[in-house]
Amino acid sequence: MSARAVNGERLYAALAALGEIGAYTDEHSGLVGVNRLALSTADGEGRRHVVAAMRAAGLAVTVDQIGNVYARRRGRDDGARPVMLGSHVDSVATAGRFDGCLGVLGGLEVVRTLDEAGVTTRRPLVIAFFTEEEGARFGTDMLGSAVATGRIALADAWALRDRAGLTVQGELERIGFLGQAPPLLEPPHAYLECHIEQGPTLRAAEQDLGVVTGVQGICWHELGIIGKSAHAGTTPMSLRADAGVAAARINVHLRDMVASGRYGADLRATMGVVALHPGLVNVVPGRATVSVDLRSPDDAALERAEADVVQRYAEIAALEHVQITHRRTARTPYVPFEPRVQGLIAAAAGARSLRHQRIISGAGHDAQELSRLCPTAMIFVPGEHDGISHNPRELSTLAQCQNGANVLLDVTLALAEEPGA
Amino acid sequence: MSARAVNGERLYAALAALGEIGAYTDEHSGLVGVNRLALSTADGEGRRHVVAAMRAAGLAVTVDQIGNVYARRRGRDDGARPVMLGSHVDSVATAGRFDGCLGVLGGLEVVRTLDEAGVTTRRPLVIAFFTEEEGARFGTDMLGSAVATGRIALADAWALRDRAGLTVQGELERIGFLGQAPPLLEPPHAYLECHIEQGPTLRAAEQDLGVVTGVQGICWHELGIIGKSAHAGTTPMSLRADAGVAAARINVHLRDMVASGRYGADLRATMGVVALHPGLVNVVPGRATVSVDLRSPDDAALERAEADVVQRYAEIAALEHVQITHRRTARTPYVPFEPRVQGLIAAAAGARSLRHQRIISGAGHDAQELSRLCPTAMIFVPGEHDGISHNPRELSTLAQCQNGANVLLDVTLALAEEPGA
Repeated sequence: MSARAVNGERLYAALAALGEIGAYTDEHSGLVGVNRLALSTADGEGRRHVVAAMRAAGLAVTVDQIGNVYARRRGRDDGARPVMLGSHVDSVATAGRFDGCLGVLGGLEVVRTLDEAGVTTRRPLVIAFFTEEEGARFGTDMLGSAVATGRIALADAWALRDRAGLTVQGELERIGFLGQAPPLLEPPHAYLECHIEQGPTLRAAEQDLGVVTGVQGICWHELGIIGKSAHAGTTPMSLRADAGVAAARINVHLRDMVASGRYGADLRATMGVVALHPGLVNVVPGRATVSVDLRSPDDAALERAEADVVQRYAEIAALEHVQITHRRTARTPYVPFEPRVQGLIAAAAGARSLRHQRIISGAGHDAQELSRLCPTAMIFVPGEHDGISHNPRELSTLAQCQNGANVLLDVTLALAEEPGA
Repeated sequence: MSARAVNGERLYAALAALGEIGAYTDEHSGLVGVNRLALSTADGEGRRHVVAAMRAAGLAVTVDQIGNVYARRRGRDDGARPVMLGSHVDSVATAGRFDGCLGVLGGLEVVRTLDEAGVTTRRPLVIAFFTEEEGARFGTDMLGSAVATGRIALADAWALRDRAGLTVQGELERIGFLGQAPPLLEPPHAYLECHIEQGPTLRAAEQDLGVVTGVQGICWHELGIIGKSAHAGTTPMSLRADAGVAAARINVHLRDMVASGRYGADLRATMGVVALHPGLVNVVPGRATVSVDLRSPDDAALERAEADVVQRYAEIAALEHVQITHRRTARTPYVPFEPRVQGLIAAAAGARSLRHQRIISGAGHDAQELSRLCPTAMIFVPGEHDGISHNPRELSTLAQCQNGANVLLDVTLALAEEPGA
């Protein structure tokens, strides 16, 4: 095999070019971040940029009805199930340029490397990116890959609305990515995703690469808190029903619950959204909408932590004289990745003398959806600055990205030559 | 004196008519509330409605450069200092129809009653309404009356911006209330303000009226909290700098501080604004803007409570690895009202066999600004539903409003016949 290594400079330049789209300057740090919330105008621009690069690489591009994009490279045995390499190009509102993009542009770099080496694999390859992986706009993460793998019905996904009331379907149409292809995916031969770790573990352990064993369980709640708005200067504390205080008590409880360690050392809990109504200095907040994000690699512990917070909602509702309702907006169990593909990743890293370790993913990824269809695994690339992510400071070096893409290349070649349908 | 009583039905109908302007239906309760945030389009419409009513009553209307409106009725000795009756017609975003409007329309009802009785007072009368009493839009309450009495410079008031960046000056111009008259007010002979209590005290004590002894001290802080936005799934709790958790701890501290009683039984503390950035379910909030509203009738206790929260900001900043800066956006000391005018109010209430008691105001009012210029006092009218205010459920009955306006009439007549300049 003559395709021995990807072109790290080319990959890094491609990441930089995509990162220009939706770029903004953070007013506090002065750093340049990325805002390509799913199906925004900037996301549409980013998608068209990537599709153009896919077409320039000779790939046949298909867009499905949920906006997932598949770029296919023919194989020697073109009827065999393809090896799929993918991730996402949407972002949170305050992102860096690596999250998701590395897996998509890394896949494209694998194709370019094979092209330059004149290599055609037995199986076809598909480079994919999926819609609204972040869940940051429409409230449900891994949306596109969940529709592609049948977990979420297309009609339900289309009907989701952002805070301004805009629907997924309408926004897909507006940005020109409401495709024709039915979204349910034929099982690929295997799915590979190269992604930044988004945490400090690999960098702290001086590892070059992580072999991802699975994705921790995730549970999201959206809470509606209803109290009574009232005058801040005249309403005695005893007569208040302050939705903001109830939200604050829940947030402090999340911290205490994690610190207690009673649901394991790896539980994480975050209140990312707090929207108070009416939100005025001299009015006791009468309503609040807040989010709770719980994660754990231990499904049973996650379930017990969820039961804990639900009981706490009731206690705080009684204490603060408010009503608290909650809606589960996401619940994904611990997802283990295929040991055989993990083994291929570890072997490839070893053959390249890259330091590597097994690691569990703290974040959700499209790979966990694809794992229902086919053997799946992920390669993690370390990040600088304690692996900060969802932040303009997110940074993986050229060497780190190149290592990930090289192992992606090796494992793709191995899988794509495997016999069978 | 033949002007013996106001027309309660006419006053109540006038309150209802003004309450139609800026009316909205609360999505949760189905109740109709009022939203006439200062210098909004709805406030402009409300102002024009009241000015038209003033002109229809034969009054000469002046608008000053901060948008305060003065409607003058001639006196027998028209060069004598006028008796001023006033309040405001702007509202919070979730208001009822009584807050402020009762003092303005009550003053107008006094004029109508005098007109019908053919009474001309010795001193001229001025019915006034002041700009942005609530502070709910531009962040500084009693803005118009503070400019009229010289506490805030016109240029500083004009430069204030709302959250969308719009200025007071620009919005005054847009709604047609950037008047010509210099804002500094010649001291009136006296200032009277009839207002709803906005609290439960009078109603619970089965009183018909409150003689207001003064306004409690008020202290507002706007806090900027700077942490580090990061991925909610992957960032270990120990590496977080969560601006939302810091805000939550401050809010819970406010509750604990009040409950402790160590700054007196009458301290009130509210966090009405919590704005998190980026405000997404799966991102640790990196920044927060929050408000703190402290009130007490005991100035020394308020000062100690303020020092307490400032120290707590520093402790929480250290605990949560965030920076917390605070800006005092308001600080008004305890303001006592003129005992002589309080006595006139009590005497008038007694002569009408109205049950009444002395009461301190929990809310800020334009009267506290005017009290720097002239003898000032306030009449409080009880409210139903525990005196709830800044809420669509705000309600004072026709009889309650009529009692207040009758005493306003009596005291106006007494003050307006007083001798001197």
